[in-house]
Amino acid sequence: MSDLPASADFIEASRVNGTAVYDTDGQHLGHIEDVVLGKRDGNVKYAVLSMGGFLGIGEEYHPIPWSVLKYDERQGGYVIGVPIDQLKTAPHYGAADNPRWGDPAYGRSIDDYYGVMSGGAFV
Amino acid sequence: MSDLPASADFIEASRVNGTAVYDTDGQHLGHIEDVVLGKRDGNVKYAVLSMGGFLGIGEEYHPIPWSVLKYDERQGGYVIGVPIDQLKTAPHYGAADNPRWGDPAYGRSIDDYYGVMSGGAFV
Repeated sequence: MSDLPASADFIEASRVNGTAVYDTDGQHLGHIEDVVLGKRDGNVKYAVLSMGGFLGIGEEYHPIPWSVLKYDERQGGYVIGVPIDQLKTAPHYGAADNPRWGDPAYGRSIDDYYGVMSGGAFV
Repeated sequence: MSDLPASADFIEASRVNGTAVYDTDGQHLGHIEDVVLGKRDGNVKYAVLSMGGFLGIGEEYHPIPWSVLKYDERQGGYVIGVPIDQLKTAPHYGAADNPRWGDPAYGRSIDDYYGVMSGGAFV
């Protein structure tokens, strides 16, 4: 197995935004709306998956731990091993909501949700 | 010395973009145009400092190692310990250019430039 070409190493956050997200069956779930950074350590902590809606109306935003997303060169998008039915019950917010990044419990609720999942579907 | 409030922990990349950048004398240098991520490790590697220009014309983009930028709550922006004269000779590109992220030597040229600096002005 060879390394990815060096060109795959770096990417502007503005180019990550808009990238398609699929489930493991290849079903299109939505796209990356934003990435959320840790200010202190400079790590990408969450990607915000935008699902549903039309022209921004009715969209739901699901913050997903970055480590849960795997980039698939073939599909040109990220793959998440969470069925769409289970995503619906995951932490999410609407376009009019402010995600509570200031509340440590909010981040934990996301981590916990996918942490439970990661014991199952993910490696 | 107390920790920063938890609210300072996370930030959307889209909110980092547009944040002001100052030198250590408080002079306004420009703003963050984008952040550059390592695809594999999910680390923020560079911030792209946009300097000069007017309405996007004549702007120059300077990729700067994330570790070189320090966030200053008081000024509400990032501070970089590099005088503006020395920034002018740092690696940069114009709006019409494609930064050569596919060329490992390009990343090294940035790291080396600020690595040299970091032996001096930075902690």
